[in-house]
Amino acid sequence: MSEEIVKQIVEQGNEVRRLKEDKASAEIVQDALAKLAALKVAYKEATGQEYVSPNARQSKPKKQEEKKKEEPKKAADGKKQTLLGVGTKKDENYSEWYSEVITKAEMIEYYDVSGCYVLRPWSYSIWESIQEWFDSGIKKLGVKNCYFPMFVSNAALEREKTHIADFAPEVAWVTRAGNSEMAEPIAIRPTSETVMYPSYKKWVQSHRDLPIKLNQWCNVVRWEFKHPTPFLRTREFLWQEGHTAFSNKPDAEAEVYQILDLYAGVYTDLLAIPVVKGRKSEKEKFAGGDFTTTVEAYVACNGRGIQGATSHHLGQNFSKMFDISYEDPSGDGSKAFAYQNSWGLSTRTIGAMVMIHGDDKGLVLPPRVAAVQVIVVPVGFKTENKQELFDAVDRVTKDLVAGGIRAEHDLRENYNAGWKFNHWELKGVPIRFEIGPNDVSKKQVTAVIRHNGEKRQIQLDGLIQSVKTLLDDIHKEMYNKVLAQRDAHLKLTTDLEEFKKLLDEKCIILSPFCGSPACEEEIKKASTREDGEGAQMGAKTLCIPLEQPAQALPEKCIFPSCKGEVKKFALFGRSY
Amino acid sequence: MSEEIVKQIVEQGNEVRRLKEDKASAEIVQDALAKLAALKVAYKEATGQEYVSPNARQSKPKKQEEKKKEEPKKAADGKKQTLLGVGTKKDENYSEWYSEVITKAEMIEYYDVSGCYVLRPWSYSIWESIQEWFDSGIKKLGVKNCYFPMFVSNAALEREKTHIADFAPEVAWVTRAGNSEMAEPIAIRPTSETVMYPSYKKWVQSHRDLPIKLNQWCNVVRWEFKHPTPFLRTREFLWQEGHTAFSNKPDAEAEVYQILDLYAGVYTDLLAIPVVKGRKSEKEKFAGGDFTTTVEAYVACNGRGIQGATSHHLGQNFSKMFDISYEDPSGDGSKAFAYQNSWGLSTRTIGAMVMIHGDDKGLVLPPRVAAVQVIVVPVGFKTENKQELFDAVDRVTKDLVAGGIRAEHDLRENYNAGWKFNHWELKGVPIRFEIGPNDVSKKQVTAVIRHNGEKRQIQLDGLIQSVKTLLDDIHKEMYNKVLAQRDAHLKLTTDLEEFKKLLDEKCIILSPFCGSPACEEEIKKASTREDGEGAQMGAKTLCIPLEQPAQALPEKCIFPSCKGEVKKFALFGRSY
Repeated sequence: MSEEIVKQIVEQGNEVRRLKEDKASAEIVQDALAKLAALKVAYKEATGQEYVSPNARQSKPKKQEEKKKEEPKKAADGKKQTLLGVGTKKDENYSEWYSEVITKAEMIEYYDVSGCYVLRPWSYSIWESIQEWFDSGIKKLGVKNCYFPMFVSNAALEREKTHIADFAPEVAWVTRAGNSEMAEPIAIRPTSETVMYPSYKKWVQSHRDLPIKLNQWCNVVRWEFKHPTPFLRTREFLWQEGHTAFSNKPDAEAEVYQILDLYAGVYTDLLAIPVVKGRKSEKEKFAGGDFTTTVEAYVACNGRGIQGATSHHLGQNFSKMFDISYEDPSGDGSKAFAYQNSWGLSTRTIGAMVMIHGDDKGLVLPPRVAAVQVIVVPVGFKTENKQELFDAVDRVTKDLVAGGIRAEHDLRENYNAGWKFNHWELKGVPIRFEIGPNDVSKKQVTAVIRHNGEKRQIQLDGLIQSVKTLLDDIHKEMYNKVLAQRDAHLKLTTDLEEFKKLLDEKCIILSPFCGSPACEEEIKKASTREDGEGAQMGAKTLCIPLEQPAQALPEKCIFPSCKGEVKKFALFGRSY
Repeated sequence: MSEEIVKQIVEQGNEVRRLKEDKASAEIVQDALAKLAALKVAYKEATGQEYVSPNARQSKPKKQEEKKKEEPKKAADGKKQTLLGVGTKKDENYSEWYSEVITKAEMIEYYDVSGCYVLRPWSYSIWESIQEWFDSGIKKLGVKNCYFPMFVSNAALEREKTHIADFAPEVAWVTRAGNSEMAEPIAIRPTSETVMYPSYKKWVQSHRDLPIKLNQWCNVVRWEFKHPTPFLRTREFLWQEGHTAFSNKPDAEAEVYQILDLYAGVYTDLLAIPVVKGRKSEKEKFAGGDFTTTVEAYVACNGRGIQGATSHHLGQNFSKMFDISYEDPSGDGSKAFAYQNSWGLSTRTIGAMVMIHGDDKGLVLPPRVAAVQVIVVPVGFKTENKQELFDAVDRVTKDLVAGGIRAEHDLRENYNAGWKFNHWELKGVPIRFEIGPNDVSKKQVTAVIRHNGEKRQIQLDGLIQSVKTLLDDIHKEMYNKVLAQRDAHLKLTTDLEEFKKLLDEKCIILSPFCGSPACEEEIKKASTREDGEGAQMGAKTLCIPLEQPAQALPEKCIFPSCKGEVKKFALFGRSY
C-alpha cells in the first residue's frame, strides 16, 4: 500500500517539475501541486509518518531515526490523538486541509481507480437529506421520477453537435463485454439529454402529450483529465437530472426559475450557504442550450466562486434535433416543436459545504443535513457512579430521538472524554451534550456548540423544544457568518487594475460586462498570474446576477479596449 | 424506425432457423422465438399493423390491401381503442402478452442499446415504494447507506477466483476515454464485493471496528448474451446491495435470515406474492460464498419459478482473500478474519409482479405499490350537469388525497368513459370510482375493483376508512388468489417419471435430493424436452425450503441412479 503511494508521489513530483519546466499554466501547476500534497497526506494516513523524499531519506537517516523514536511518546499521550486531529490549518493549505478533513471525518475513502472515491455513510447521509428535500419539492411541481439506461449509442450521442463537442473529450467508452469486442463502442452517459430525447420523440404525438416532466437520480461519468478532487471534480458522480418538455416557451422559462429557487433552497435552507442566483454568460452556458441559470456560492479560504447547480432552458434546439414535435393545434398542418429544460444538482454540494463551513478542528455540519445533530457524552464519572450516569445519558438520548432529533450517545469505554470531544468535533456534529454528575443533580445538560465553541446549560425540562430552537439558531448563525464573509469579499469595480487587485485579495467582483465570449477570454487572460509561487488562475464570470446592483450601469465594459455595449453587471471570480 | 425493426425481425428469423438446424438446446430456441415475438410486437406498436413476412407480403398483396381498408373502421369505433387494448391473451402467448402489457401500460420504453430499457414513472414508482419500505427496514437493523464507485480495477476484480469465474463472461469493460486508450481497461461492477472489500480491509483494525453494515442503491451491469427481457433479464439493472462484516459467525448468519425475512416481506406485504424461503443448492449458490438463501415465487402462466432476492453468507472466504482481519482479542497474537454477508434485491421484482398478477386486460397493481390507488372518472353527464359532476369528482379526489390515499381523477374531455375504463384497467389501477349524476344525488360513488371486476357502491360518509379497508382487502385477495394458484401447482413426488409429467403440467415439485451438483445436472438433463414445438428447458432446484414438508424424508434421491444420501426435500422447477 505505502509502496504504491511512494511510487505515485515520485511520479507526481516528476510531473510537477516537468510542468514547471514546460511553463504550463498556473492553474495546471497548482492542480498538480495539490495532487502531490494529497498523495503526501495519503502517505501519512497509511504509515503514520510524514513523507520524506528518497534523497532526503538517504542523506538524513539519523534525523528519521530520531523522529521514529519520538512517535510513540506523542501517541501515548491520549489514544491516537495525533492521528485524530487535523494536522493542517485551513488558512495555510486549504487543499491539504480538505483532504485531511474529508478522510478523517470518514466522509471519503480513497479508491484505486483515479478520480473515483467512496462516499461513506457520513457524507452519503447528507446526500440523502438533500434528495429527500429536493425530491419532495419537484414532486409538488408535478415532476415524476424514472430511470433511463446509462449506456448511450454513438448515433444518439452525436445527434446534437454543439452539445457533444463539449462532452466528447470526457466520454468513457465500453468496447468489450467478457472476452467479446463489441460491434460498436457504447458510451456511458455524461448527462442524459441524448439518452432521453429519442423517447420523448416517441411520446409526443400531440400537444396533449405535453408537458413531460421527468427526473432521475443517478450516476454519470465525465472522464476529466484535470486533477480530481473528492466531491468537487470526480470522474463518476451522483446527481439528479430533470428533463422537461413544454408546448410553449413561457411555461418552460417559468419552470427554469422555479427549479433555480429550489436549488437556492438546498443551499440556503439545508446547507446554510448563501448563493447568488444568475444567468451564465454565453461562454459558460450549457452547450446546446438557449440559456443557463445558476446558483453561485463563495469559498472564503481561497476566494473562489463555486457553481452550486444549474437549470438550463434548451429552447427548441434539442427538440428540433431529436424531432420532439407535434401537429400545431392551430390546424394549419404545420409542425410545432417542444420547448425544453434540463437541470442538475450533484454531490458537489457536499464538497462546497465542507470547504465553506469547515474549520481547523475539522468538519462543521449544518444541523439540517447532519446525520447526528446531537452527540451525548458522559463526563467526570467514577466507578461508583458510572452506571447512574450512563443511564442518564441513555435516557436523554432516547428522549431526543423520540422528539424527532437525530441524537446518539458515545458510551465507549476505551476512549476518554477528551478523545471523544475531538472525534465528534472533527466529524462536525452541531451540538455536543456533556453530562456529568453535577448536570444530573441539577437536571440539566451542558451543551457545546460546534461552530462557535460556545458552552451553555440546558434544562431537561422542555429539552426537545430547547434543542429544536438551538438547531434552528445554529443554522441561522452559520448562514449569517458565511453571508458576512461573502459580502465582505463581494466588491464592485469598473477598473480592470482594481479588479485584478481585488481578485488577489480573494474577492468576487461585480463589473460591467458586454457579455461577449471574446471579451471574457481577455479578462481571464489579463487576470491570470503565471509567476511561480503565487500563480493563480484567471477570473471568469460566475454569473450575471438576476438581482443587479443598485448602481447605475456604466457604459463601458470592464475590459478597457472593449467597444461592445454593456448589458449588465456580471459577477466575476476565480472559480472551481 | 419500422425498417429497422423489419431488418431485426428478418435477422432473428434466420437466427431461429439456424438454431433449429444446429439442434440448439430447447431453452436457447425458446429464447430466440420469444425475441422474435417481441420484435413483432414492436413492429405492431410502431406501425399499427401485424407484421407480415416479405414472402407472405409478395404472394398475398390483395389480402393485405383488404386488411388496410378494415383498419380505419375499427379505429373510428372509439379513439385508438384497438391500439389501447392488449391484443394477446396471457394464456396463449405469455411472452408476447408481457411485452404488450409493459409497453402499453407505460412501464417500459424500448431503447436502442440491446438489453437496456427505460423505466418510466409508472414502473419506477413501484421501485420507489419498495425502496422506501426496505430501506426503513434495514435502517432499523443498523444498516447505513453509502456509495462506492461503479468502476473496478482488474486487480481487485480478480482477487477472488471462484467469484470472478462466475461473472467474468458478463463483465463490461471501459477501455477508452475521449480519444485516449486507457492504460488498463476498467470494469463496470456486476456486483460490488470486489469494489467494497479493499475498503473494508482498511477500516477493520480491531474487533471494535465490527460489525460494518453498509448498503447501496445503485445500477449494475451484467452483459448477458441470452435473450433479454425487461425487468427479468437486463444488461443494466437497479438494485440494492448490502455488504456486512461481523466478528463472529452466529451474528452474521442471524443477519442473513433477518434480511431474508425483509425480502419475503417485499413480496408478501407489498407485492401480494407468496414466496418460499429456502437455501440454494451447491450448484445454484452465489460463487465464492458459503451459502445462499433465497425467496422463490411461482409464475402460473408458464409454470416457472422465479428467484425473488438472495441473501448470502460469505463466510470468511472474501475476508481471507481481501485480508479483512484484526488481531484476535484472545490476546495470543493470532489473526482473526471477519465473517461476511452480501444480499441483493433488484428491479426484477417488478417483472415478477407483472407476470404473476397481470391478466388479459393488462396490468393488475397490488394496492401498496400502485402509483395511483384510486382513479376517479365522471360518467353519464350532459352539457347541463357537467360542471356540477366535475366538481363532485374533484371534491372526492381531493378528499382521498387528503386522507392519505394516492388518488387522481381523469377529467379529459377528448376521451369517453369507456376509453378511460380500458386505459386505467390496462394500467392496473386497483380501484376505479365512477361518479354519475345518480351517485351524486345518493351521496355515493360506484367502485369497480380491478383484480376481480366487482362493482359496488360506497357511501361518501366514511369514505376514507372504507377505501383503506377496501385496499387492504384487495391486497389480501390478490395474495390469496396467487397463493391458491401456487399451492395447486406445488406437488411432491419421489418418482422421476411423475416429476417430468408434473413439470409439463406447470408444477413446481418437492422431491428428495442428495444435494450434489452432478445429480442436479442429471435431473436437469432428464427433464429437458428437446422436441421442436413443445421444447422446454430442464428443471433445476429453486431452493431447499427452510420449512420442510411434514412427510418423512425418503432415503433415495429423486434421481434413480443416485447413490448419495438424501439431505432434504428440494423444490424443483423450470425457472427464470
